Amino acid sequence: MTPDKSLSAVPYYYSSLACGLTPYVPGEQPKDRKFIKLNTNENPYPPSPAVIEAIRNAANENLRLYPDPSCSVLREAAAARWGIKAEQVFGGNGSDEILAFAFAAFFNSAYSERPGQQAVSARSVEPILFPNISYSFYPVYAALWNIPFKTPELDREFNINPQDYKQNCGGVILANPNAPTGKALGIKALKEIAEAQLRNKKVFIVDEAYIEFADSADSGSMIPFINEYPNMLIIHTLSKDASLAGMRAAYAVGSEELIGGLCRIRDSFNSYTMDRLAQAASAAAITDTAYYSEVNAKVCRTRERTSAALADLGFKVIPSQANFIFASPPSDAIKFFAALREKGFLVRHFNRPLTKDWLRISMGTDAEMDALVQACRQIISENNRK
Amino acid sequence: MTPDKSLSAVPYYYSSLACGLTPYVPGEQPKDRKFIKLNTNENPYPPSPAVIEAIRNAANENLRLYPDPSCSVLREAAAARWGIKAEQVFGGNGSDEILAFAFAAFFNSAYSERPGQQAVSARSVEPILFPNISYSFYPVYAALWNIPFKTPELDREFNINPQDYKQNCGGVILANPNAPTGKALGIKALKEIAEAQLRNKKVFIVDEAYIEFADSADSGSMIPFINEYPNMLIIHTLSKDASLAGMRAAYAVGSEELIGGLCRIRDSFNSYTMDRLAQAASAAAITDTAYYSEVNAKVCRTRERTSAALADLGFKVIPSQANFIFASPPSDAIKFFAALREKGFLVRHFNRPLTKDWLRISMGTDAEMDALVQACRQIISENNRK
Repeated sequence: MTPDKSLSAVPYYYSSLACGLTPYVPGEQPKDRKFIKLNTNENPYPPSPAVIEAIRNAANENLRLYPDPSCSVLREAAAARWGIKAEQVFGGNGSDEILAFAFAAFFNSAYSERPGQQAVSARSVEPILFPNISYSFYPVYAALWNIPFKTPELDREFNINPQDYKQNCGGVILANPNAPTGKALGIKALKEIAEAQLRNKKVFIVDEAYIEFADSADSGSMIPFINEYPNMLIIHTLSKDASLAGMRAAYAVGSEELIGGLCRIRDSFNSYTMDRLAQAASAAAITDTAYYSEVNAKVCRTRERTSAALADLGFKVIPSQANFIFASPPSDAIKFFAALREKGFLVRHFNRPLTKDWLRISMGTDAEMDALVQACRQIISENNRK
Repeated sequence: MTPDKSLSAVPYYYSSLACGLTPYVPGEQPKDRKFIKLNTNENPYPPSPAVIEAIRNAANENLRLYPDPSCSVLREAAAARWGIKAEQVFGGNGSDEILAFAFAAFFNSAYSERPGQQAVSARSVEPILFPNISYSFYPVYAALWNIPFKTPELDREFNINPQDYKQNCGGVILANPNAPTGKALGIKALKEIAEAQLRNKKVFIVDEAYIEFADSADSGSMIPFINEYPNMLIIHTLSKDASLAGMRAAYAVGSEELIGGLCRIRDSFNSYTMDRLAQAASAAAITDTAYYSEVNAKVCRTRERTSAALADLGFKVIPSQANFIFASPPSDAIKFFAALREKGFLVRHFNRPLTKDWLRISMGTDAEMDALVQACRQIISENNRK
């Protein structure tokens, strides 16, 4: 079951586009479930009972009928939660899909012969901006739609410099909190970027996949400010904070014009992206804030305990505002990754120059994280004995 | 809830791509359910009980975990059903999504400044071919990926001339049976097209959305021939014959190289396209051939009765191999469409020069179709009285 194995020898009947792409590689999804899985930022707690009930109720003979293409129940639930209009909400099959649509809808293509080759368009297309360390799917979307991009550098502590994103450009996308660092920009800095890009007449996308885990005083969702910035699109996934990675559900929030742009791409791609069960589950999840506030507060407490415990063991730990920790072990990170895997723990390692010394560790339950800390302690002591 | 209303005035921050698109418009999905809905080719019978049970069993705490990105359970079920390898199967979020991926993977873009404008690439890109009357999403995909196309004409009886699709071109896509006509090409003609395009080194896509309703002696699925034609991709939706339009599930079958091409685009777009419930439902549906054979045979019998009854009323009826009938009423089709809507029946009318005199009528239950025939009789008699 490795459909990509043929990719090293590209068959003659692939399009130029297909030949030029380097697809995203998601974290391993082990099928035998022997691992403690801390590699894809899933929530350790189950979805709300109301979500499971909503799915079971919707699993009926109406599945023979197409779903509502506009995802009304999800849009109305999000509108009620955030005090906005349903017309300011767009539902999608995971935030990856919404991101793919948003890149196509709001960022211009360079129309080159092939991604990576020299552009042949007479028109000069301004590059979009995102940090050199961020969600590694962003450059893949840019390649898919052939959008030129530049990647301002984070500082040595992995901070984003907001000034970098106020310049003239083709548009901006930031993950806030950022991944895999877990660092968040404050609301004031994000408003300044939105304002600058509004003056530039460009779209500013804020990917808030982890925002429900951001608990510092100055951070929070940008959704309350969408009426001030008609160029600002906010994307929320239900995979992390709503424990629904297996359901594929997400929503975007922004001005009606931005939502209309997303619809335009979606309806040229797949009119019905969210099935009946995903729509019912999403509406129930967005509505049950009481359950998820409690669950996610628990994840944040586990993050603080685990961060402290890893720091005690000699890890360099970036203070996290997400449901994962970005931490550098006291010895070679690739070997540490392998040693953890050997002991039954899956974490994520991004083998690129700027991240090669770091591990991204998703938050499990307290018991799972205690076991991880214990495993780290053993690895360190085994290393010291060598 | 009309997100597209802003499209007449395109905001400045839409991309060139978004500005240039004319999205597909699906059939109306009434929310009040007062209509007898014969407009989107849904199955009148519910999904198999095994499907509902599979969904309910999968609606559990594991929804917190990402789904299997390779959709193994679906692939294995399809492999078992068709006697092929799981590696020759690709799962997707409806056949619309698989079609969007397939256009990108196998058909070359013209790299023009904008869809509809003059190409600026020095390289000459051969146009792909599909009939001038077929699934109206095909030209939309072509616009999305900027793929040039030509549309050979059907004859006056809506027949495809296989010869048209053996010429040199950028690739071929045919719906078989075709929509909205319901006419099918035989296996021999399709093999000749596959053979010709294999010599041309181009991909031949057969969209078999309605193949389970094709019961003429010479027609049938092309899946048994995929090993002969490594350039032939077959796409099956579960929306029609498996009564799962509300679930969004489909699969493609072809050589491992073709499947690898689809994976390449998918993994540059959204790594996890099918959620856990859709995968479980799909596997159960593909496996329960006994239930669906019976249901779909019933649909075919209803089609024959209804075709005969409409012909008796003076409709011109195209003999159908699908779960719908393409029929021309004895008076103005737009007015007939409106009169049926008035009486509570939704059918589909494509208001284009070659199809404006025709209605596409999906098959409901026998009782629903008897009611439709009765309504048609009334409309005709009301017309005669005027």
